[in-house]
Amino acid sequence: MTREEFLEFLKEKKALVDQKLEELLPERDEPGARVISAMRYSLMAGGKRLRPVLCMLGAEAVGRRGEDFLLFACGLECLHTYSLIHDDLPAMDDDDLRRGKPTCHRAFDEATAILAGDGLLTLAFELFSSPELLEVTSPERLLQAVHLVAQAAGASGMVAGQMADLLAEGREISPEELSYIHRKKTAALLSASVVSGGLLAGAPANDLRALETYGEALGLAFQIVDDILDVVGEEEKLGKPVGADIRKKKATYPALLGLSEARNKAKELIETAVSALQVFGPKAEPLKALARFVLSRQN
Amino acid sequence: MTREEFLEFLKEKKALVDQKLEELLPERDEPGARVISAMRYSLMAGGKRLRPVLCMLGAEAVGRRGEDFLLFACGLECLHTYSLIHDDLPAMDDDDLRRGKPTCHRAFDEATAILAGDGLLTLAFELFSSPELLEVTSPERLLQAVHLVAQAAGASGMVAGQMADLLAEGREISPEELSYIHRKKTAALLSASVVSGGLLAGAPANDLRALETYGEALGLAFQIVDDILDVVGEEEKLGKPVGADIRKKKATYPALLGLSEARNKAKELIETAVSALQVFGPKAEPLKALARFVLSRQN
Repeated sequence: MTREEFLEFLKEKKALVDQKLEELLPERDEPGARVISAMRYSLMAGGKRLRPVLCMLGAEAVGRRGEDFLLFACGLECLHTYSLIHDDLPAMDDDDLRRGKPTCHRAFDEATAILAGDGLLTLAFELFSSPELLEVTSPERLLQAVHLVAQAAGASGMVAGQMADLLAEGREISPEELSYIHRKKTAALLSASVVSGGLLAGAPANDLRALETYGEALGLAFQIVDDILDVVGEEEKLGKPVGADIRKKKATYPALLGLSEARNKAKELIETAVSALQVFGPKAEPLKALARFVLSRQN
Repeated sequence: MTREEFLEFLKEKKALVDQKLEELLPERDEPGARVISAMRYSLMAGGKRLRPVLCMLGAEAVGRRGEDFLLFACGLECLHTYSLIHDDLPAMDDDDLRRGKPTCHRAFDEATAILAGDGLLTLAFELFSSPELLEVTSPERLLQAVHLVAQAAGASGMVAGQMADLLAEGREISPEELSYIHRKKTAALLSASVVSGGLLAGAPANDLRALETYGEALGLAFQIVDDILDVVGEEEKLGKPVGADIRKKKATYPALLGLSEARNKAKELIETAVSALQVFGPKAEPLKALARFVLSRQN
């Protein structure tokens, strides 16, 4: 699969997700509807839809149609968007721009943004437990996938990573602490996304382990590339100011290892990710292409 | 069941919940552990454990042992505690005291409190999807219960209620709008708590409808009593300042109907709740006692 073929493929998958999300969250006319507008605002603000795509591709690697699990995949995007909204809040990273648009609390207000995040986090689990999914997977598998994602998102995963990230601001931290932050904050949900796809598709344990290895390596590489882009990226493509991490004295791989060593580290991780997919043969081509895409991305 | 018998009964159930919550959330020693401390702080700050008790009693009404569903019940308390932490935030109700202790953002800080809420909301769904629960219920029933609770908690339930409550501050609202706020903000989760217990216990559809009628009436009565206590309660017993709703120009039933009419409304609702339980016979005695307790509570 060439980069161009993959980009075309990604575009199609992204369109599926965008359309479904649009359907799932219509505007309402009732006293509390403002929170729905805020949820929609952030959810439909673009984004690569990487987590839903990973979920669908995880299912495809084991021979199922990814689209069958679209509802679950959309839940993963809700989960991701909630974390962005809350991370951007004044009490957290205090960001004004996200994907080139005002952040949720800037476009609405702080209370609405907190509630929009809460609403999206809850909507994720509403989608994960949709009765429709029992037409394409077993209830046992579905419960396992819900449990896996909840662990990756909670105080053993994303929430712990964001806490540690905030506590690390403005002071020197060890490579171990930085790795903890990135594993928890980014890699855990990326990995759970691809593994949940395999789980729902009925993959055996050794396939799930291969997807997990892929997902964790991909997740760490993704974060390192993110850190690198914050140093050398182009503001316009990123949709947010370059150098924000440095100004906030955030711990990053380039700061810790230097730019060139950070690039090597990301490359190594992508190789690890791709190697883990050997067991799947050609069905994992899109996952491999996605890994190479993550390494070369510019936003 | 006399009031004294019920209080003793409640104390035993509460002790089960307290002990299990304590076990489920041990302190940790890792970079992100601060959020665990904050989650524990709010979760273990007391509280009546009404939602977990309702879940267990819902199961008992249809002839099962409530304690079997303790893990699920504890998830409901996590969900409730998350909503208190976020509602207390400066951007929301800006409260300094909760259950007689500093609110989470006062005891820790705002970022930690936001994350503690997020962590508890996610932990709730981690508990709901615990593999251990499949020893006591079917995976289909468990998924239905997860879905029901997610709907009650999200942007069609609690989150919408809190949004509408914030938007109603400082202006006159209609009885319809006040009823919307209370149904969404309080009654939805109380009702889902008792219904989820019945669901997990394998209750047939008509039993579930009876539990739902009970739960909704109880939930509205609970909120009306809450509003009344804010006017006439004793600060010491409540653990928070009396009159806060009036100072914040919050919409309440006593403000809308007058104190005496509000009391009558609560009483009527409790009668509706108790009547709905006829189908269960003596197994629903504790649920009836709980309804009468809600009407007479002083904190």
